[in-house]
Amino acid sequence: MARRLSILGSTGSVGRSTLDVVAGHVDRLVVAALAAGRNIPLLEAQARRWRPELIVAARDADRSRLEPLAAELGAALACGDEGLVAAATLPGADTVVSALPGGAGMVPTMAAVEQGRRVALANKESLVMAGELLLAAARRTGAEIIPLDSEHSALEQCLRGRRPEEVRRLVLTASGGPFRGFHRRQLEQVTPGEALAHPTWAMGPKISIDSATLVNKGLELIEACRLFDMPPERVEVVVHPQSLVHALVTFVDGASLAQFAPPDMKLPIRRALSFPETWGPPFDPPLDLQRCGPITFEPVDHGTFPSITLARQALAAGGTAPAAYSAANEAAVAAFLEGRIAFPRIWGLITAVLERQNIVPADSLEVVQAAADEARRRVAALTEGVAER
Amino acid sequence: MARRLSILGSTGSVGRSTLDVVAGHVDRLVVAALAAGRNIPLLEAQARRWRPELIVAARDADRSRLEPLAAELGAALACGDEGLVAAATLPGADTVVSALPGGAGMVPTMAAVEQGRRVALANKESLVMAGELLLAAARRTGAEIIPLDSEHSALEQCLRGRRPEEVRRLVLTASGGPFRGFHRRQLEQVTPGEALAHPTWAMGPKISIDSATLVNKGLELIEACRLFDMPPERVEVVVHPQSLVHALVTFVDGASLAQFAPPDMKLPIRRALSFPETWGPPFDPPLDLQRCGPITFEPVDHGTFPSITLARQALAAGGTAPAAYSAANEAAVAAFLEGRIAFPRIWGLITAVLERQNIVPADSLEVVQAAADEARRRVAALTEGVAER
Repeated sequence: MARRLSILGSTGSVGRSTLDVVAGHVDRLVVAALAAGRNIPLLEAQARRWRPELIVAARDADRSRLEPLAAELGAALACGDEGLVAAATLPGADTVVSALPGGAGMVPTMAAVEQGRRVALANKESLVMAGELLLAAARRTGAEIIPLDSEHSALEQCLRGRRPEEVRRLVLTASGGPFRGFHRRQLEQVTPGEALAHPTWAMGPKISIDSATLVNKGLELIEACRLFDMPPERVEVVVHPQSLVHALVTFVDGASLAQFAPPDMKLPIRRALSFPETWGPPFDPPLDLQRCGPITFEPVDHGTFPSITLARQALAAGGTAPAAYSAANEAAVAAFLEGRIAFPRIWGLITAVLERQNIVPADSLEVVQAAADEARRRVAALTEGVAER
Repeated sequence: MARRLSILGSTGSVGRSTLDVVAGHVDRLVVAALAAGRNIPLLEAQARRWRPELIVAARDADRSRLEPLAAELGAALACGDEGLVAAATLPGADTVVSALPGGAGMVPTMAAVEQGRRVALANKESLVMAGELLLAAARRTGAEIIPLDSEHSALEQCLRGRRPEEVRRLVLTASGGPFRGFHRRQLEQVTPGEALAHPTWAMGPKISIDSATLVNKGLELIEACRLFDMPPERVEVVVHPQSLVHALVTFVDGASLAQFAPPDMKLPIRRALSFPETWGPPFDPPLDLQRCGPITFEPVDHGTFPSITLARQALAAGGTAPAAYSAANEAAVAAFLEGRIAFPRIWGLITAVLERQNIVPADSLEVVQAAADEARRRVAALTEGVAER
């Protein structure tokens, strides 16, 4: 029987790749709901092609524009936060692709988990900010949370069929981003355009900046600890500029398994949608080991790129600290993209937020949201030159 | 409860490494039998240390020398082919380490399988020569055949928890041996001493020459097809000079898993002895990705090194052809080590045997032995300048 998908963030990079995967498997995957943010023309085109039963625009302001199309297609229409939750909980949709950017994905992701849906999770911020709550809800409802990141998908493959006590450490690879090898002084001068030009992956703006700062790897480290129930000291990050090995697992005997794959998001997306099956054929071009050139690994320059160290501090602090890390970063990235701060200031702002924020247990989504809001306000205050209270 | 081991080939490279592994796990591994070929002084030392209940010398001539020690230790003593079978079938020994060199391992390996023992198999010639018979016997008796080669151990790790229909191809890595990059003309001049100097692995003489010719990879290809029930066209060999990746599996979706480990036989030996558990700690030095230098892959030069092509021909011919391939090689290697033939003549002799031998179904060990004897006689005739019948 075909799997019915609800795609949150259908017009973003992951959403578009998800629809490419669906196009290759129309006998096994059906689009039940499409939810998007601001790219209404693309949402319209996607709806015409895939004819979902529910169309969602994240902004209420787009309702009137979409009404005629929804009527024409016989689809339901919903908007705003409620619309996103409606898409996440659509009856009959068995798999929710959670690919909204940043903290916006948290509430609908939780809604899908509460309904016991399988969640293909690209929105790593959900798991970073509210991981304990999401995992507790998943245990309660039987929801499966399947990582859609290439790194965590790779870890899942390496860990398949192995017992927890066999595992010594997880290793996430980082391409190093466009500024690998840069010194602090050079980083002061980089522009948003330079930061958006990722050497190996084509992605949306927020995650591209996160790759340049290595905050993306910090978020992934937290995500890996939560998904695979590993203490942070047993999760490492190594720079691997070719982006062919996405993760490794070292076992207690000293042997490691590494997952190799072309840097194409369609691969982990299809893995998540087909889990636990593996569907072929390979996406072109398949990786040719004999032509891929030398594969190298090198240490992270934690002095110049402190994102992973900050993520470890947030994990050690626990409670709402990871939410503060994620939200402070999100606000700082926006400020950098708007030209309001220099690139290394992103780290300065995360550091300032983690130092000053009152960390409390992450008991509810409201508490997490409040912590994130506090972090964003603090970043806003610091970047607007307004003294904080 | 401790696992009781019968070690066939205890004084060879694999046997000694096996005892190193036992030394690290005396609470979980017990030596029940030691069987060796010609290195009687080392066999005596091993027997004193490990106090097996059975001591075996492959040559009857060594019986009288070993009798006083056996009496002193209260151990049984057996010799010759019967002794090897006695060690392979010792009551109460649950795991047989089959590490005799070449075709000599076939009969005792079959004896262990017939008794339903777990066989940790280093003697790949057994599986190449009599693979169908061994696997049929294992299915009948419930014997487990666990590969002790680093490559096949790596494949088992990559395949763990996966279904056959997920697998696209297996990839064995080859260091390329000491003559990687050599041309035919250069190979005409190489000496046994040069051929024995393997760049990454310390091994016995037969397997060292097999690594230099790449016949070892041909044997491993046949072994992989048999152990993992794969057609030959889905098993590939790639040169990887660093010997850190021992094998890869590519799945139908285009993703691959690679096993990384230091080139230390103790690792696959311990994996086989502990299977399906994974015992730590890592052997020193554990692999450090960040310091291991570039990892490269390159195609095999099949024109200069035809061993793998010949192995594929033997597999395609089926029946006793793999036995002829293995036995012809064994005799040719002996001739090369004795200085009677030039290095590339090893391939010429294998080719001549495969072309001329009458291939029949491998219905019994006797048929396989007869085919191997015929191959050896033909090599002897060709290397002694005697005309063949």
